[in-house]
Amino acid sequence: MYTITFQPSGIKIKVEEGTTILEAANEAGIGIDAPCGGKGTCGKCKVYLNKGQLNDVSAAERKNLTVDEINAGCRLACKAIVHGHCVIDVPEESLLGEQKILIEGAETEIRIDPLVRYFSVVLPTPTLEDNKCDHHRLEDAIRKVSGYESIDMDLSTLRELPNLIRDNKYDISISMFRNRAMNIYKSQYRDLYGAAVDIGTTTMVAYIMNMTTGEIVGIGSMMNPQIPYGDDLMARISYSFQQDKLKRLQGVVVDGVNKIISEGCNKAGITISDISEVTIVGNTAMHHIFLGIYPKYLSLAPYCPAVQQAIDCRPSEIGLNTNPAGNCHVLPVVAGFVGADHLAVILSCDIHNRDEMTLAIDVGTNGEIVLGNKDGMICCSAAAGPALEGSCITYGMRAADGAIERVNIKKGSLKVDYKTINNSRPLGICGSGIIDLVAEMLKTAVIDVTGRIREELEDGNERIREGDRGYEFVVEWARKTKQKKDIVITANDLREVQLAKAAMYAGTSILMEKQGITVKDIDRVMIAGAFGSYIDVENAMTIGLFPEVPLEKVKSVGNAAGTGARMSLISKEKRDEEKEILRKLKYVELATHSTFQDQFVDAMNMPHKDLSLFPRVMKNVSAPIPKQ
Amino acid sequence: MYTITFQPSGIKIKVEEGTTILEAANEAGIGIDAPCGGKGTCGKCKVYLNKGQLNDVSAAERKNLTVDEINAGCRLACKAIVHGHCVIDVPEESLLGEQKILIEGAETEIRIDPLVRYFSVVLPTPTLEDNKCDHHRLEDAIRKVSGYESIDMDLSTLRELPNLIRDNKYDISISMFRNRAMNIYKSQYRDLYGAAVDIGTTTMVAYIMNMTTGEIVGIGSMMNPQIPYGDDLMARISYSFQQDKLKRLQGVVVDGVNKIISEGCNKAGITISDISEVTIVGNTAMHHIFLGIYPKYLSLAPYCPAVQQAIDCRPSEIGLNTNPAGNCHVLPVVAGFVGADHLAVILSCDIHNRDEMTLAIDVGTNGEIVLGNKDGMICCSAAAGPALEGSCITYGMRAADGAIERVNIKKGSLKVDYKTINNSRPLGICGSGIIDLVAEMLKTAVIDVTGRIREELEDGNERIREGDRGYEFVVEWARKTKQKKDIVITANDLREVQLAKAAMYAGTSILMEKQGITVKDIDRVMIAGAFGSYIDVENAMTIGLFPEVPLEKVKSVGNAAGTGARMSLISKEKRDEEKEILRKLKYVELATHSTFQDQFVDAMNMPHKDLSLFPRVMKNVSAPIPKQ
Repeated sequence: MYTITFQPSGIKIKVEEGTTILEAANEAGIGIDAPCGGKGTCGKCKVYLNKGQLNDVSAAERKNLTVDEINAGCRLACKAIVHGHCVIDVPEESLLGEQKILIEGAETEIRIDPLVRYFSVVLPTPTLEDNKCDHHRLEDAIRKVSGYESIDMDLSTLRELPNLIRDNKYDISISMFRNRAMNIYKSQYRDLYGAAVDIGTTTMVAYIMNMTTGEIVGIGSMMNPQIPYGDDLMARISYSFQQDKLKRLQGVVVDGVNKIISEGCNKAGITISDISEVTIVGNTAMHHIFLGIYPKYLSLAPYCPAVQQAIDCRPSEIGLNTNPAGNCHVLPVVAGFVGADHLAVILSCDIHNRDEMTLAIDVGTNGEIVLGNKDGMICCSAAAGPALEGSCITYGMRAADGAIERVNIKKGSLKVDYKTINNSRPLGICGSGIIDLVAEMLKTAVIDVTGRIREELEDGNERIREGDRGYEFVVEWARKTKQKKDIVITANDLREVQLAKAAMYAGTSILMEKQGITVKDIDRVMIAGAFGSYIDVENAMTIGLFPEVPLEKVKSVGNAAGTGARMSLISKEKRDEEKEILRKLKYVELATHSTFQDQFVDAMNMPHKDLSLFPRVMKNVSAPIPKQ
Repeated sequence: MYTITFQPSGIKIKVEEGTTILEAANEAGIGIDAPCGGKGTCGKCKVYLNKGQLNDVSAAERKNLTVDEINAGCRLACKAIVHGHCVIDVPEESLLGEQKILIEGAETEIRIDPLVRYFSVVLPTPTLEDNKCDHHRLEDAIRKVSGYESIDMDLSTLRELPNLIRDNKYDISISMFRNRAMNIYKSQYRDLYGAAVDIGTTTMVAYIMNMTTGEIVGIGSMMNPQIPYGDDLMARISYSFQQDKLKRLQGVVVDGVNKIISEGCNKAGITISDISEVTIVGNTAMHHIFLGIYPKYLSLAPYCPAVQQAIDCRPSEIGLNTNPAGNCHVLPVVAGFVGADHLAVILSCDIHNRDEMTLAIDVGTNGEIVLGNKDGMICCSAAAGPALEGSCITYGMRAADGAIERVNIKKGSLKVDYKTINNSRPLGICGSGIIDLVAEMLKTAVIDVTGRIREELEDGNERIREGDRGYEFVVEWARKTKQKKDIVITANDLREVQLAKAAMYAGTSILMEKQGITVKDIDRVMIAGAFGSYIDVENAMTIGLFPEVPLEKVKSVGNAAGTGARMSLISKEKRDEEKEILRKLKYVELATHSTFQDQFVDAMNMPHKDLSLFPRVMKNVSAPIPKQ
């Protein structure tokens, strides 16, 4: 018997000559990562011989280790055989389930521990003394390597089990979703892949992930193919009042998801059938339509979703072409207008685990806002309308070629400097441009804080003029624009922007009121979505879209919904936290909140009726304050 | 506030004027059976007003109660409204889940508590203040009446949920399998039905049960339609070595099960789609083939089944035509040759719950034997061969028209009296007749205890003669038989019977040895199967098929496998006990047991080499004992 000492834990164990280091570690309760089951094929169970005597370096090790590693005493624990007392150093990356990685966009490190896992086992050959059923034989073997007490198996898998294990001479590999057997193969190591999909109203994106490493290995994206059936959610919901039309809408989005997953898989050199699990996020309407759930009542008060909790189902139940034995996990929704995408934002911003009081905002037709920390969160949906997405604004447009995305107005001359997407000739103004434009008009006193264009300036500047429907401000003259028309912003447009920002701000105010805090207590402001990546945050505060906080507290988190979907895909811990978020999260219906109307009216002024809330931005605002 | 006192429990509760007695009882924690959910339609929540003041008898009560009942103060708890302090008598039959019934054939009373249940609920109409999701709304309502913490719902049900609850104005009924929603209906009371099916190698029977009352409302049966593909199990397993032939065999048995369930439903005035759950028992080969599990390895040493534990699946996964939202429960098997049918025998004989040391025997080609009590059970399968089923015996036949089923031989003259099935002209001898015949030959010394036909009697009696293959005994002369041939039993036939009974007895001996008991410690002997109902138990002991015990300890329990399937269908408690039986039950592989050969050889003598084990029956045996 030889003593093996593992470093850095210092755990010691006595083993017999001929034991492998992997076996010794298992016996000592040290989990070394060995997804190939000790065959020497995956190269993950690297350890270092610090002192003592092992067998010679094997062929499998020469294949999996570099010369430098071998010279440094590196061995594969599964192939290193004890021939004397040893001290073994176990590097952290070889420890099972201890690696934490920071995935792009996430606010917290996560441990890679997907719900789909892969195990290799050699089953003892049955004898008359040991003739337990095949299922128990497999279960006993898997229990040792997985920790799962029992294995669930579909009837379809069970039907093939006797042949599968005998044809492969009791040496098999098995992929599992939680404790359910997915596929049983001839024993060999393989990576597992999954897809995290964000179904937005406008665009859809699929992230293909290697679930062993947590890396994104391919991305596919496209415009939501439902757009021809309705530009906005309400139109699509109305379209699907008829069951056959719901089926059509579901069909096109599912086809689209298959397409973007395939596209991402192509880039990774795999096929869609290699995808073991898919996680899906989207707003509640997208969620219902994707699942084929009748969405009509999302559009009618009191806006009840059919189901809140996460849905786990087989890909075939939806029509996905991923591994049919795998799983499709659709994250939970919060309410009729706070969807799985917002829950994923909370997950990725780690609000539910932190002490910091966090405000997370996703600007959209229905702006989703959440405020809270690990002690509790409140969220709401603010009916902002589409103004900040460029819709219902005279020259508003999506963030596409020719959209004015940045605006600067010179004080005095009111000369307009701007930047367009791709530096093309200007065609219209997208969301970030609109925010800049309005903020600049405030700073240069083209408008007053009530949003009124100051007609009195008409005489001094040709950019201020009376148009068909009231006063307007000329951003660019016809001769320089793509469509040879003056690009203007009208009094009506300003009103739309004010309605949008007032709804967002009033929602935020009510959440603060409910949390019993003021703006000073907010530690972090997370702006989610593409919108957040493009806007000028200071300008957004200048018009009063968000409460004024020090800029260093604000962070644009990009597609945080997609990040949340990726976290849920590769981390059992994060998956379980979805339920925890639902438990900690309260939804406030703004429409029925007693102070909403007052808050809304006060927030129509820019930045706000109560200017003391915006001391910093007010230093730059020249817009006059009309007498009450 | 008024005080309501419930009798006989004496529980008191204070309630407001206008509360119903059902509500008061619920609040007091007294479970009154009200499957219609308090609509006054099922008439199950009968209580008696002992003292106090209630509202006038309602129309619903006049419809559901007899005049005598009303005169005796009987009320429906759901329609009886408190108008003053009351004392209410609650009869036992109105108490939820307290009724126990003795179902035919079962050795213990069971509480009717099927896994499929039916609930009626009125959901609160959603408002902006209460706009939780439909699923939670339903869950909250069902939780109150069912005790289930959560409700699982298929995506297909979820898709229709928003319409189902709104089209029915939030007043719905729901059938559930465990905590999974099956069907959602417009609110109205209905009975639930299930089917318990015993798939025997030869015959199949389906019991249709009203799951609310526990009554058998129809029975369907037929010969196993697999018989044309092989008379015995081994032939059928061999046939199914090819996957397409396995599919064919599965197809015919599933079609047959659909047929007998439909037949039973016809008798009950319902259709097969009204069947919410099916429980299935059968031996391990029938189990595998019915489920479509490749059965080849059941026929090859070491005879591993693919799966031991119970299978719960959707009817469609197998091809059953019962309610597609319902469940199919296939009871667990014990080993390759001890099937779900035997587990069901243990369940119905209640061996696992009792102190009494019980021996249960199911005679067949593979005779299944179990010995034990609540502290532990051991079972085995004895390869008895088909002799006792009439097969491989020269004039053996199934228990059908013309089969000799009872035999008596006169001492001295050796005149044979017999009885045939339907009193038809004799055609052959079935199992019970064979046992009688051999026992009578022992009693009349036609054979000696080694089973040898005593040639020395040939001269004195024409019934004893030398045939083509050794000596034989004439049971009936050609002129009186259907096929105009002498019906005889040959030395070979006797040898087959001895092999069968020796296997059964040796199996039993080994179980006793393993349990550390002797025959005196056996408290009950249960003989399962049709065979057990027809044999003369004393004669069976005379040939040494079973150990000799006082006759009053022996009971024929008929189709105990079918009884077990029915118990599992209507009782959650019994369903759960299936797992308990597996835990308490050990399987012994006779072939590898060290003393099996010796035990087997000793048991070839009739009744046994050690005659002291059979003191009672030996009083009647005249057969000589050859010198060793």
